[in-house]
Amino acid sequence: MTREALIDQIKQKRSFLCVGLDTDIKKIPKHLLDYEDPVFEFNKQIIAATADLCVAYKPNIAFYESGGMSGWQSLQKTCKEIPSDCLHIADAKRGDIGNTAAMYAKAFFEEESGLAFDAVTVAPYMGEDSVTPFLSFPGKWAIVLALTSNKGSLDFQYIQDRTGVHLFERVIQKVNAWGTTANLMYVVGATQGEAFKLIRKQAPEHFLLVPGVGAQGGSLEEVCAYGMNKDCCLLVNATRSIIYAGTGKDFAEQARNEALQLQKAMEAELIKYGVIG
Amino acid sequence: MTREALIDQIKQKRSFLCVGLDTDIKKIPKHLLDYEDPVFEFNKQIIAATADLCVAYKPNIAFYESGGMSGWQSLQKTCKEIPSDCLHIADAKRGDIGNTAAMYAKAFFEEESGLAFDAVTVAPYMGEDSVTPFLSFPGKWAIVLALTSNKGSLDFQYIQDRTGVHLFERVIQKVNAWGTTANLMYVVGATQGEAFKLIRKQAPEHFLLVPGVGAQGGSLEEVCAYGMNKDCCLLVNATRSIIYAGTGKDFAEQARNEALQLQKAMEAELIKYGVIG
Repeated sequence: MTREALIDQIKQKRSFLCVGLDTDIKKIPKHLLDYEDPVFEFNKQIIAATADLCVAYKPNIAFYESGGMSGWQSLQKTCKEIPSDCLHIADAKRGDIGNTAAMYAKAFFEEESGLAFDAVTVAPYMGEDSVTPFLSFPGKWAIVLALTSNKGSLDFQYIQDRTGVHLFERVIQKVNAWGTTANLMYVVGATQGEAFKLIRKQAPEHFLLVPGVGAQGGSLEEVCAYGMNKDCCLLVNATRSIIYAGTGKDFAEQARNEALQLQKAMEAELIKYGVIG
Repeated sequence: MTREALIDQIKQKRSFLCVGLDTDIKKIPKHLLDYEDPVFEFNKQIIAATADLCVAYKPNIAFYESGGMSGWQSLQKTCKEIPSDCLHIADAKRGDIGNTAAMYAKAFFEEESGLAFDAVTVAPYMGEDSVTPFLSFPGKWAIVLALTSNKGSLDFQYIQDRTGVHLFERVIQKVNAWGTTANLMYVVGATQGEAFKLIRKQAPEHFLLVPGVGAQGGSLEEVCAYGMNKDCCLLVNATRSIIYAGTGKDFAEQARNEALQLQKAMEAELIKYGVIG
């Protein structure tokens, strides 16, 4: 999906919501366990209930890999179930040397492996040759970790070099040179407050994928105040607050209600900042 | 596999060789394509030909994921084929927030997913909660990226903080506190020359997993000069120079010859530094 198409979807749906599909078989409603593939059935119903309210879905690959072969199968089926007007993001956080990174890119981008994601999250620690293989597929995206939403983000990402520049800023400065605003996004946690401003200084035009709103405690208003630009260029992810909103037979309806609340709040922000009328 | 058992294997086999199983179906001998699972057949023959010469095998997960379901199946079968006196390393370079890291640990360590690796390579960028879930399985290891063998290692790993300490040193200083020498190793590229000394200063007793000897140009002698301690505590990996040594029907024999040369060189180093008599 191109940058233009994604911005267009945001304006049409009046939403920049990404729904995380971190589907844990231990947390889904019990009645789904009677289905042949409970994880896929759960995802299918969540997608059907929310697809008009969001512009992206983001399965975290760990939740599927941990199921072995059958988990991989659920992932393939889920990837096919996501409508084509939504960005398909593989939250994989991969990062390896050049020839291996190319194998990962192939695994997530090419139909051959049974998956055809539009975007993959990538870890920057190993540098240029670990990132650039994800940037050579037309219409596909690398989403590079800059400043994450977890407590551990404090351990290394805030390290300052001799000139006072943080590691996460150095990452953006370097990585910016390897791609464009049409094939490169950054992950920035909603929990990072004012540091968000430093990110927008380094990457004023890039899309930012923002986890941490909802269960992790980040504020949508704050994220928009620091991060929204004239084309929006934010994808705000919510996972647990949406997909586990209900635990009964009406779980999909409950998920829709949560997603709808977020979409309404996002619409108000899009209007406030003049992205839509 | 415990630290004691691993050191014991090194002394018995007079080798600290790790064989990388980055098996690319495009690079294996043509006659194997007639088998139902050519990748597994290749690995099986490589393992049979080299198991007495090495102490670890390290499949890089990308090479299996890129094959989708059938790739995952080849990986499961390969993992079972590796003898129990060798360390089973999943070269996965995973790194994600706490609850997700726990899912990855489960995926690679627990039989349930069809895999039962002893060790997983882990990326440090996301900090403590992305690493510690790999440290809570008895007899299992997290192998954290410190200073990698690729060109991109220059981009961020050498960044110096205000006191002149490199990022890779900061990583080791922090991560040391999260585990022990019995559940934590570090990845250090054989191509890093003198920087290797700085690593041993930070981690004198930890095992180091060292890629980059062979096709990538690192020198075994140099690695030993900088990195060997009284228990050896090195695992030196070679991949392409061994597994692709031959391209014909005698590929496994050719692989054995290459592995044997490395084992002999390693034996000499172990004697030189007094690890074995």
